Parts: sequence; structure tokens; C-alpha cells
Amino acid sequence: MVAPLFAHRLRVRYHECDQQGVVFNAHYFAYFDIVLTEMWRELFGSYEVIYAQGTDMVVAEAGARFRGGARFDDELELRWWITRLGTTAMSTRIDVMRGGEVLVEGDMRHVFVEAGTTDKKPIPPEIRAPLERFVREPPGVGGQAPAASR
Amino acid sequence: MVAPLFAHRLRVRYHECDQQGVVFNAHYFAYFDIVLTEMWRELFGSYEVIYAQGTDMVVAEAGARFRGGARFDDELELRWWITRLGTTAMSTRIDVMRGGEVLVEGDMRHVFVEAGTTDKKPIPPEIRAPLERFVREPPGVGGQAPAASR
Amino acid sequence: MVAPLFAHRLRVRYHECDQQGVVFNAHYFAYFDIVLTEMWRELFGSYEVIYAQGTDMVVAEAGARFRGGARFDDELELRWWITRLGTTAMSTRIDVMRGGEVLVEGDMRHVFVEAGTTDKKPIPPEIRAPLERFVREPPGVGGQAPAASR
Amino acid sequence: MVAPLFAHRLRVRYHECDQQGVVFNAHYFAYFDIVLTEMWRELFGSYEVIYAQGTDMVVAEAGARFRGGARFDDELELRWWITRLGTTAMSTRIDVMRGGEVLVEGDMRHVFVEAGTTDKKPIPPEIRAPLERFVREPPGVGGQAPAASR
Repeated sequence: MVAPLFAHRLRVRYHECDQQGVVFNAHYFAYFDIVLTEMWRELFGSYEVIYAQGTDMVVAEAGARFRGGARFDDELELRWWITRLGTTAMSTRIDVMRGGEVLVEGDMRHVFVEAGTTDKKPIPPEIRAPLERFVREPPGVGGQAPAASR
Repeated sequence: MVAPLFAHRLRVRYHECDQQGVVFNAHYFAYFDIVLTEMWRELFGSYEVIYAQGTDMVVAEAGARFRGGARFDDELELRWWITRLGTTAMSTRIDVMRGGEVLVEGDMRHVFVEAGTTDKKPIPPEIRAPLERFVREPPGVGGQAPAASR
Repeated sequence: MVAPLFAHRLRVRYHECDQQGVVFNAHYFAYFDIVLTEMWRELFGSYEVIYAQGTDMVVAEAGARFRGGARFDDELELRWWITRLGTTAMSTRIDVMRGGEVLVEGDMRHVFVEAGTTDKKPIPPEIRAPLERFVREPPGVGGQAPAASR
Repeated sequence: MVAPLFAHRLRVRYHECDQQGVVFNAHYFAYFDIVLTEMWRELFGSYEVIYAQGTDMVVAEAGARFRGGARFDDELELRWWITRLGTTAMSTRIDVMRGGEVLVEGDMRHVFVEAGTTDKKPIPPEIRAPLERFVREPPGVGGQAPAASR
């Protein structure tokens, strides 16, 4: 059985495209942030709920492999899942899809901190529990796949 | 002897900082692009010169590890060097420094293409030659931590 | 009878908010552009259709009055209408609403040009016709305050 | 005698240019913010100094008239002066120059507030004093000029 993933759709904005006619690479990292926000909304109502309970997150690592360029007005689907749920950190994968095509493969690692500080803290159980169903093997394990070559 | 690196300074803009009071992660990838632009200016007068000769680049991979947050008005030094100069691709490293501290370690991989297309092409010799002196071993080789060497 | 307006909803993204916890002023101008894109989609299928027929637009003026600050995750409604439809130019108004409150009042003036150039051209009749129903008196005419009419 | 203006130079970044090959309109408003930051640095060492003394500013109005498009790698000069220094508000003008050409004319109105709030406050005397020498008649008064047509 495959773990579910969280999906969010968005449309490429005009100013996100550069002179090459495609989304400038940095904007995909903003997209990754958006899908996480929407995931928190789905699971907890909003990120604000988590923050109000004293938990915040900081980005420890971010990466992306670019296979194709999204264009102005493209409707994209961002598919998100967890590749590792540690004690204080969460590694996630985001695939940016246009139709059936993967344009960008993203990886983020977030560390949980006390809200208002940069002090690491264990992921609280009430946050961890609903996240667990999104934990998937990283793609490529046991065979080959996009990220295996990294 | 250690290969030289290219350095460029910039100041954090107000709108690049988010509610946590630090530069939002995606903006560092725009910073990485800026240091490359400045490097091309240093070597060739401007990126336009390269483009006018029929060569362009696309980003194939981008990544960053975040160790500390830059703040509004911080003056940062971006240190750039090449970790691999392939036939059609160039891997580079960018350290974002504040004073002696490495805040962010970035990695980019660019692929050279025919200008106006996405067709790969070998790096032309006249572009490759001046780049070669910036090729360094990747940090951490020989058991050293990435930033420990600075 | 009051002319209709075009409405589009969007959600404030995390990185659009600055250290003051509100959307940085420049981002509202990107929002204004988004509502125009969505209006073109509504009327013509997409802006691409217009461009493919040889017409493009450039921004001649943009302005905004800020009455309140939108915050992260706020769902906003952008209300757009035309205040003047000239021979080669179109003046529009955009109200950024949160619930019943007007947060920002925007004004844009676009000039129609030959696609691929900056040469002014008259608004083609097939573009003008569907726009005409969105032409409204500028707010405040007749002694009413801009937002009082809503 | 003409009052002095404050000038700051910056270079157009690649990702600030859109598919039309020119700086996207919203980014000029970020440029306007940068010139104010640099002006505060010139007068007080940094904006932080002002904030630490309990004063902050919010943007009440922003506007721009676009006469020409800045392009990637263009070096621009932003010329800033004050058109009105009120009790609690300051209106400023920013001309974005490329060589001797005015590309964009900007207008901002900032309101002074208690730091950490949105409560208006009179401009403190120690802030007002150094600003006064930048107060100029608005262009076009006594004749005609760029903004007179507004």
C-alpha cells in the first residue's frame, strides 16, 4: 500500500516568469512553502493553530531538480509527502506537476523550534500523529528513480 | 595552492525578510543568481556578451543548507567557486557569509544551451578557459566539514 | 443600474508578508496584475488569446492607497472595474477586500500596444466590446466616498 | 537655490525582468523602499536607529508613472526628495533614472507611527530636522511637468 500524498494546485503568475519565458528557479521554493502551508491548513485548520500552541519551523535545507519549465498561466499541481519524520526534523518531497509531467522535484528539511526562538524541539505528538500517514519511502529506494542519482 | 573564489557583496533588502525577521529561503536562490551574473561581468564584461555569442544557461539543480538567518540591512558576502566543470554543465558552490560566519551554503548546477533554445551544448572553449581557475575541490573532501576550512 | 465588477479571490502567501506582519506594499501591485489576468481569462479564455492576435499591454501608471494591512493566510477578494476606456488606454480600479473591509484601493492605467513592440494602438473592437460593460463612474463622483458605496 | 536630493544607484536583477524583457512594475515599488532605506542610513546610520527610538513608518500611498522600461543589468540611479513634510506624514518623490533619462516617476506617502503599532505620531524633531533640507517644491508647480497631468 502506498502512503497518500497531499496535493495543491496553483497557477503560475506573470511576474514569476523571467525573460526565458519560464518560472525563475527561486520561485519554486516559494511554491514549496505554499504547499506546506496548505498541508497545515488541511491537517490543523491553519499554520496559525500550530504556532499558537508554541511550535514553529525553520528551513534547514532546500533543493530542487529542474526537468522542465513552467510557463505563465500554467496550472500546476504540487504533490507533497514526507520522506523522513525525525525527532525534531521533517524531510519532505514536493513534485511540481503539469499534467502528468514532473517539472521540478523539490526537497525540503524543516526543523521544529519553540515559537519565537530558534531552539530545536521534538515534534509534539499531536503534530506528529496526523503527519505519520504521509510518510513514504523516498522515491528510488530499491530501484531507480528521480532522486536516486543524487 | 588554493584556487581563487569570486566574491560579491550585497545588502539584504527589507522586503526580502519575512515575519520571522530573516531572509525568506527562496530569496537566497535569487542571491545565487546575482553572484553568477557578477562573475560573468567580471570575466566577460557582462552575461549579455555570452548570450550574444549564442550561449545561454539553464538551472538544472539548486540547493541550500541554512545555518543562520540573514537580517534586514545585513551586508553579506557571497563567495562563489566551481566544484565541477563538465562538458556541458557547471556545478558551483556559493557561501553566503556575514562577517566570518557562513549563513548559507548553496549549490547550483547549470547546463549550457544554445541561446534561445533548451538544447544542450558543450561549454565553448572561450568560456571554459577563464572559468577553469575557479575550479576547486568540493569542500569537505579529505574529511573536512564544508565551512571548517574557512 | 450599476455596472458589474470582476472579482477574484486569492490567499496571502507567507513570503509576501514583511517584518511588520503585513503584505509588503509592492506585492499589491502584483495582485493587481493577477486580477487583470483572471479578467482576461474570464472574457477571452486567456491573455494568450489576445497576445496571439497581436495585442499586448504595458503599464503606464499604477497607484495604491493603503488603509489596512493584509496578513499571512488572509483570503482576499480583489474587485476590479474600469474607470475609463479610452482609445488606446484603459484605466482600472482594484479594491482589495478582506471581508467587507477595503484594505487597499488600486488604480492602474494600461496602454495597448502592438504585441512585441511598445507602439501604441487603438483597442481593437473585439477587445473593447466585452470590456464596455465593466465601465463604471469613478468612485466618489457625486459626493460619495470611494468605499462608502459598497 | 534648489534643495538637494538623495541619490542611490542599483543594478537591475535578472529575476526582476519579466517576459517583456523589462522590470515588472511592482518591483519599482521595492526600489522606492530601498532608496528610503539608504536615505535613512545616510542621515541616521540606519533605519534601525530610528526604530530603536520608538518610531516606525507605514506606507499610506504609492504611485508610479512609467515612461520607459529598465532592463536586466541596467544600472539605475534613484533620485529621492521630499515634496511635503507634514506633521505626521511625509510625501516623497523618486525618479528612476538610466543615464539622463527618467524611466519612472514614483510618489510615496509615509505615515509615522509608534514602533510596534499603527498609531500615528508626529514626526519627532530629531528626525524632522535632517529631513528638512530635502524638501523641494513638487515638480511642475508654477508651470507644467511630469506630475502636473495627474
